[in-house]
Amino acid sequence: MISKKMIALVEGSGAIRAMFEEGNRLAALYGRENVFDFSLGNPNFPAPEAVKQAISDIINNEDPVTVHGYMSNAGYADVRESIAASLNSRFGTSFGLNNIIMSVGAAGGLNVVLKTLLNPGDEVIVFAPYFVEYGNYVGTFDGKLVVVPPDTSDFLPKPEALEAAISPRTKVIILNSPNNPTGVVYSAETIRRIAEVLEKGQQTHGTSIYIISDEPYRELAYDGVDVPYLTGFYENTIVCYSWSKSLSLPGERIGYIVIPDAAYEYQLLFDAACIATRMLGFVNAPSLMQRAAAKCLDAKTDIQSYDRNRKRLYGWLTDCGFECVFPQGAFYLWMKSPVPEPEFIEAAKRHNILLVPGGAFGCPGYVRLAYCVSPDTIEHSLPAFKKLAAEYPKIDHS
Amino acid sequence: MISKKMIALVEGSGAIRAMFEEGNRLAALYGRENVFDFSLGNPNFPAPEAVKQAISDIINNEDPVTVHGYMSNAGYADVRESIAASLNSRFGTSFGLNNIIMSVGAAGGLNVVLKTLLNPGDEVIVFAPYFVEYGNYVGTFDGKLVVVPPDTSDFLPKPEALEAAISPRTKVIILNSPNNPTGVVYSAETIRRIAEVLEKGQQTHGTSIYIISDEPYRELAYDGVDVPYLTGFYENTIVCYSWSKSLSLPGERIGYIVIPDAAYEYQLLFDAACIATRMLGFVNAPSLMQRAAAKCLDAKTDIQSYDRNRKRLYGWLTDCGFECVFPQGAFYLWMKSPVPEPEFIEAAKRHNILLVPGGAFGCPGYVRLAYCVSPDTIEHSLPAFKKLAAEYPKIDHS
Repeated sequence: MISKKMIALVEGSGAIRAMFEEGNRLAALYGRENVFDFSLGNPNFPAPEAVKQAISDIINNEDPVTVHGYMSNAGYADVRESIAASLNSRFGTSFGLNNIIMSVGAAGGLNVVLKTLLNPGDEVIVFAPYFVEYGNYVGTFDGKLVVVPPDTSDFLPKPEALEAAISPRTKVIILNSPNNPTGVVYSAETIRRIAEVLEKGQQTHGTSIYIISDEPYRELAYDGVDVPYLTGFYENTIVCYSWSKSLSLPGERIGYIVIPDAAYEYQLLFDAACIATRMLGFVNAPSLMQRAAAKCLDAKTDIQSYDRNRKRLYGWLTDCGFECVFPQGAFYLWMKSPVPEPEFIEAAKRHNILLVPGGAFGCPGYVRLAYCVSPDTIEHSLPAFKKLAAEYPKIDHS
Repeated sequence: MISKKMIALVEGSGAIRAMFEEGNRLAALYGRENVFDFSLGNPNFPAPEAVKQAISDIINNEDPVTVHGYMSNAGYADVRESIAASLNSRFGTSFGLNNIIMSVGAAGGLNVVLKTLLNPGDEVIVFAPYFVEYGNYVGTFDGKLVVVPPDTSDFLPKPEALEAAISPRTKVIILNSPNNPTGVVYSAETIRRIAEVLEKGQQTHGTSIYIISDEPYRELAYDGVDVPYLTGFYENTIVCYSWSKSLSLPGERIGYIVIPDAAYEYQLLFDAACIATRMLGFVNAPSLMQRAAAKCLDAKTDIQSYDRNRKRLYGWLTDCGFECVFPQGAFYLWMKSPVPEPEFIEAAKRHNILLVPGGAFGCPGYVRLAYCVSPDTIEHSLPAFKKLAAEYPKIDHS
């Protein structure tokens, strides 16, 4: 009797639950510390001390009716002003509070923007591999997901492939850099070429095509790599940001949407996104956390620890002979499966290693490792990876 | 280029914004303290001290990775267990953690449940007057809102009217007691008769019909009136609760869904609601507030102040000759408009009184006053109401 759409999704979610239950089963058998769970993008590092201090300051010094009360659906004006000023100083933009809508994380922001934009049948282009939930979000609003196949040489989106995917029904393309699951960061040149293709697509079809830039990993970039701010490249860009990873606050569901003045029909878009925030039942982003995040705009999570994990795991796995993409950002390592992927996932489990299949990201033949785990988990897992590699004599595990 | 559904909603939202702007215009002219804004259901009383203490305890004593981290989409197991135990002790239920899903307020919960249940064209029955957002929520999932006209003698839902509204496509009826906007509380007898009609409807059509009990005002009931717990009356009952009003935390977006074991296809329903929580972009209810609310299950907002406002305003307005429903719960007063409603709303504005038209709740000819304001606002507004009443000589303003 429940929604038919949902029945299919419950059935499809079996694999993820099975993974979760497998983790618990292995932990019960061997102890939690001997299970190497690389399946979850849940930061293992605490929020910076500044967050605790901010929360404490707010509940002790600000008016509780304001701190915990309703505000406009877009969020507190002072919070939005602080965010705009911070973005302007970092990226040379000229945003004001009326370009910012606070959101329930980036996931909440994406739903708001998709509800705002999509008519049934409108197409949303994503580049494989992509965050699997995009398809579900688009489906809620009766949009059609159009998947551009991966270029496995560098996992960068290719302008030619994008051009081939654009149709008169194209309304949105979702970009995600630093990327989940590959860890790749899109260069300015890549973005420039994507923007050119989109401009051409808009002209050809007489339509507006919006980029949604999904940026939960913006602050997690290594070796000083530049993560270009997309609004400077393409006018119809909407940014969905989250503090889930940058401040290790994934459970708090706090982020924001940027809608620049330059976006087509900016005012209608902004007003509609505020209403969509209300109508989808978010109403507003959690109020205390709005205020806390605004006090922590310069705080950072422990990126050095992620970086150490990244180098250690990448170095070890490639030494074992596995073929990996060297991650420039986020906290994922994208590895080629030496044999058909379900077989490899099962083999890894026998060594108490939990991985996510690339098929879950629309890109079979690969697996994702989330290295946002404790350094101990990394160290203890290394012999297990060595043994796993030894099962595949064709790969060079010198 | 934005969603056609949203364009209509942006246009429709003009009246609410106009009210908001009118409030600001009047405040600029006459001072904020001389504007009597009864239009917003935003509690003017602070959260109980226990909330501040709970937040402080949690951030100082619990592991920040857990406090701010992801948990299962349903929420923290210990939080859900505490809530189930609290409900069991209060209402004689036998819920466990697997009957509770934490939600982003009641609004978030309603969206999750509607997404879980509705196929396109499924009918959702509401009783006028009703919270205007219900229609928008149902529309997102392509359901059809079926409005049962009000019985203006007592504003209680009538079994005969419900029976006439049930069709083979009826999937849900939404009940909201204590009621927004009338302040009416549904008696056990009313609920028993509704349950009988629904049982009969299910049998006649061979369908499952779910009650969604929307309960943000459960704790706001006056004079010891009983607010029956609906799961004891009808098996297919799903409860959407919120602490927005009971703990004065409307900005925090924290509540929960109850899905009893007895509900038809319980397991599928529960699993689907967890997935819907993720897919709609909530992912989970805000984590710190989940933990804080669980520590405040016995805390109460300042209901005595609401009660004083209720009695003072009701007494004064009826003395002025206005015809009002005596509110048993919530913090709304429902008043008959002595003349066509838009005219009365305009007249009230000339006395710096802001009211919401009953038409916004599907019930023209009435207005709603939200008395969750400061006692001073009530006192200062009384002469203005007296003058307003004097404009209508046909009403008895002795």
